Amino acid sequence: MSVFDFDATPARITDSFARQGLMRTLGATLEKVIEGEVRIAATVSPRSAQQHGVGHAGLTFSLADSAAGYAALTTMEEGFEVVTSEFRISLLAPARGRLVATGRVIRPGRRLIAVAADVHGDDGAHVATALGTMVPVAAT
Amino acid sequence: MSVFDFDATPARITDSFARQGLMRTLGATLEKVIEGEVRIAATVSPRSAQQHGVGHAGLTFSLADSAAGYAALTTMEEGFEVVTSEFRISLLAPARGRLVATGRVIRPGRRLIAVAADVHGDDGAHVATALGTMVPVAAT
Amino acid sequence: MSVFDFDATPARITDSFARQGLMRTLGATLEKVIEGEVRIAATVSPRSAQQHGVGHAGLTFSLADSAAGYAALTTMEEGFEVVTSEFRISLLAPARGRLVATGRVIRPGRRLIAVAADVHGDDGAHVATALGTMVPVAAT
Amino acid sequence: MSVFDFDATPARITDSFARQGLMRTLGATLEKVIEGEVRIAATVSPRSAQQHGVGHAGLTFSLADSAAGYAALTTMEEGFEVVTSEFRISLLAPARGRLVATGRVIRPGRRLIAVAADVHGDDGAHVATALGTMVPVAAT
Repeated sequence: MSVFDFDATPARITDSFARQGLMRTLGATLEKVIEGEVRIAATVSPRSAQQHGVGHAGLTFSLADSAAGYAALTTMEEGFEVVTSEFRISLLAPARGRLVATGRVIRPGRRLIAVAADVHGDDGAHVATALGTMVPVAAT
Repeated sequence: MSVFDFDATPARITDSFARQGLMRTLGATLEKVIEGEVRIAATVSPRSAQQHGVGHAGLTFSLADSAAGYAALTTMEEGFEVVTSEFRISLLAPARGRLVATGRVIRPGRRLIAVAADVHGDDGAHVATALGTMVPVAAT
Repeated sequence: MSVFDFDATPARITDSFARQGLMRTLGATLEKVIEGEVRIAATVSPRSAQQHGVGHAGLTFSLADSAAGYAALTTMEEGFEVVTSEFRISLLAPARGRLVATGRVIRPGRRLIAVAADVHGDDGAHVATALGTMVPVAAT
Repeated sequence: MSVFDFDATPARITDSFARQGLMRTLGATLEKVIEGEVRIAATVSPRSAQQHGVGHAGLTFSLADSAAGYAALTTMEEGFEVVTSEFRISLLAPARGRLVATGRVIRPGRRLIAVAADVHGDDGAHVATALGTMVPVAAT
């Protein structure tokens, strides 16, 4: 059971997330949205694995990047979206089981937003840590 | 038609690629494998897109990371695989159409391999550029 | 007055720091050394500034990188040193006054050590945050 | 003898460089300025070295960052300066002798400029490669 309260989350975030094909493809779910922090989870499956059944770095990155991007979005006015400008991820441990990515805003801004993200595994493993830059763009 | 010559490519690379679930999920194909350089392509689809139908940063990352990882693998002896230690990607233009990621080795090594990757779009757009570090691990 | 206790700090760290010409040039001092965490400080001066008298990004980087490197060194056996493999710094606020860089180990290792660093200013400003990779080498 | 032609270089670049205390401290010189590309050089000295007399990562970073920043500046209108938003450097070989850092613009922009830099040694060694993001600010 998720404690995520969809009713309290800005529709622009739940709507945007629901339209992200890759998040659906990876089986990702929005777990938490508060000002400046967003949590996204997904369970490693054969479809998101590398050659040994461990989660592909691309899965871990996708969760971390999306969590950080939505965290940035929570700090912005209506009428904007964000795109990733650059993202740097360190992969610290094999990605197994259910992964939880927590993105947060380090420094908000009108021109660029400094973000960070961490990904943890079921077993408490610190799977990845990341720093990135998000850029606001007018929503279309 | 691809000019990729499977017969001339080390089986450990084609086999490994074929077992990567995420590459299959993203519709990625191995396009070129030479010593120190690997090319992987995929066409953006609703399944790998973000909320506006443009390729998700996670797609671009996954192609770049895999191309760079296999490029690193071409420089290693039999009996080893590589895992990504860290990867930093700059997203320069929207990812549209068919994406081609070219990974290459900047500096080989027994303990870590410095790699780079660039992703281009159909239209010649420079979609992304990346630097990363790959680490050899004994194949299991 | 510094609370730094030189007597309790491994000589290999104080000796190594004392031989770093750049640290001396920048007026940097070792402030804290515990297992997995090192603090280095320096005050911005005209010699380490950019064109407006604010600390140059190179100063902030140098303090963050050295703090992270020595933090890595605290986790290693005698007979080794570390070199920076790669380092990624986000500059979040102007560097003014006395800068304090805190480096810490995120994940120790025999082949590579994942590190992080943060730099704060006198006024509490979060000047920079960084992630990097250190590599052990046999001491000569 | 440098082939650098000061007369043909925008004064805002030579003036700005001349006011950078850290560049003077490191003995750095401006070697080339063309649209989108800038070269800065410095010789490793005891003052910019680490504990073994090799150039400190902070020296290599400072040259790369400054070369990339001035490369960004060449693409901007009068009345602006740039600051580093984030910078990621891979250190590939020991920094010895005279280092030459070449910064270039990968993608210009009004809000942020994607840059790259490479540092080479006397002996042709590829000492470092870097990617970063520069942000325009109104000159004061």
